[in-house]
Amino acid sequence: MAILLYNGDFGTDAWSEALQQQLPDETIYCYPQVPNREDVEFAAVWNLPQGELATYPNLRAILLLGAGGDFLMRETRLPNVPIVRLVDDAVIGDMTQYCLYWVAHYYRNFHEYARQQLEGVWKRIEYPPIDEYRVGILGLGNIGTEIGRALSCTGYQVSAWVQSHREVDQVKLYKGVEEFAPFMAQLDVLINVLPLTSNTHGFLNSERLGLLGTHAKVINISRGAVIDERALKSLLDAGKLGGAVLDVFASEPLPSDHWAWAHPLVQVTPHSSGQTYPRSAVNSLVDNILRIRAGEEPYPLFDPTRGY
Amino acid sequence: MAILLYNGDFGTDAWSEALQQQLPDETIYCYPQVPNREDVEFAAVWNLPQGELATYPNLRAILLLGAGGDFLMRETRLPNVPIVRLVDDAVIGDMTQYCLYWVAHYYRNFHEYARQQLEGVWKRIEYPPIDEYRVGILGLGNIGTEIGRALSCTGYQVSAWVQSHREVDQVKLYKGVEEFAPFMAQLDVLINVLPLTSNTHGFLNSERLGLLGTHAKVINISRGAVIDERALKSLLDAGKLGGAVLDVFASEPLPSDHWAWAHPLVQVTPHSSGQTYPRSAVNSLVDNILRIRAGEEPYPLFDPTRGY
Repeated sequence: MAILLYNGDFGTDAWSEALQQQLPDETIYCYPQVPNREDVEFAAVWNLPQGELATYPNLRAILLLGAGGDFLMRETRLPNVPIVRLVDDAVIGDMTQYCLYWVAHYYRNFHEYARQQLEGVWKRIEYPPIDEYRVGILGLGNIGTEIGRALSCTGYQVSAWVQSHREVDQVKLYKGVEEFAPFMAQLDVLINVLPLTSNTHGFLNSERLGLLGTHAKVINISRGAVIDERALKSLLDAGKLGGAVLDVFASEPLPSDHWAWAHPLVQVTPHSSGQTYPRSAVNSLVDNILRIRAGEEPYPLFDPTRGY
Repeated sequence: MAILLYNGDFGTDAWSEALQQQLPDETIYCYPQVPNREDVEFAAVWNLPQGELATYPNLRAILLLGAGGDFLMRETRLPNVPIVRLVDDAVIGDMTQYCLYWVAHYYRNFHEYARQQLEGVWKRIEYPPIDEYRVGILGLGNIGTEIGRALSCTGYQVSAWVQSHREVDQVKLYKGVEEFAPFMAQLDVLINVLPLTSNTHGFLNSERLGLLGTHAKVINISRGAVIDERALKSLLDAGKLGGAVLDVFASEPLPSDHWAWAHPLVQVTPHSSGQTYPRSAVNSLVDNILRIRAGEEPYPLFDPTRGY
């Protein structure tokens, strides 16, 4: 039997090495090199071409190699096997650090200081007490909750918008459709962590983004298609938004003619807020392979109908 | 009786207002408006011109308005009254945030991503596990200790160089002259928090800075004169250092013709790592005024012979 590896453009060398080190007797196929489809017992994959997963007759589980499983949403026929999410505390820690960095960037005016340096200006810029700086989180799953906790420990005033009842220490919750507008209106920074599903596709459209104050900034670390990129550009151009940090885009790699590259109010990073490293993430993979072989349930399961 | 206020170029309006709110019956003189020198009971000051402090016959205490008291070192004759340091947790928190921001900036390659954005390049940059990224602290006083604690909680491998015996959780200590070179050699980032004294003036000279690896970065948040700025420039220009974040300079405001403004490896901020805000700092001032009037010792005392 064999484990099939695929990680989109990011390559599988490091995964293959880390996996082989922990499971030395295992046969590993790196897609598209698949000598025998019937050998494939586990598909440890991300962004595998559409339709491919249905072609392995002896597949026992799909193990995701990244935090998101949205690439599975385009499948019309998924094999009837468990799909297992990748949970890697190192990735969640990295995404949290990414958010702390960019919130501090705005709160402490580092974007202004960079401009002042270009102009040779020595001038302190005032900032409010940290507990008056308001950061909001959209998407209070395990990643959003950890980001909220870290922001709150740092001292920011943290809130989140949720649709169902939740309790999170030190995070003020705005609930349901009627509290969405007041949630947005009070923010200095909005962090989008919503997973991409049919419900969240284009959720941050012109109308919803327009609820933010003109000084407010948007940080997107989930999936590009949750934001209507044209609407975001229009609001930035019209002075109705203060700035954006975009780590994810509807089309990746970001096309060279995309407006975001050269927009003075936009920071682009290449889907790197939480880079998955086999050095830490391989443990979750190996654990679940051993669980399944021992007849136990893999954990945590991914639900393609919810998108997370 | 009166309180004399002076805060260098930063102005005293906010201090005066905050102080008057807590002590409404108090007379406040904002230097250089001093109707009667004999009225001055407390000098709440920073960067007061040399010689000025000795001209108030009824002075009971000098209350520092900033974290450093190095401006007192140029005085040849200080009045024989207690000098009280300003301790403001908000300032220490801000300095800590400043360091976390810039260490993340280097660790997570945000300087490279900014360059990639200018060039339209979409490419992830690798980084090591956070516990292999080594940050060192020079100056393990109350500020340096807090910065070390926060870096260590974030996950970095933190070390510090000390001259006398200390114990700090999660911070590896290098001790004494013989361990200075190995301390410097292992670092990815050096944070200087040494106070400026006659012993530390020019301490980070060419020889000592040259002990750092060629990829290493320097963050200076204490006082500019602790670093030999020409030596730093030479090392950067020669490719023997990776970069520097300089919040403080030997001469401030930074002269418009200073090399640091335009150096591609240097980030300049205007002595803003920990801005002292009267909104939080006034409490320490009022506490000590009331203590002294009640016949109690003010706290904590500043020792001009040590420089902190």
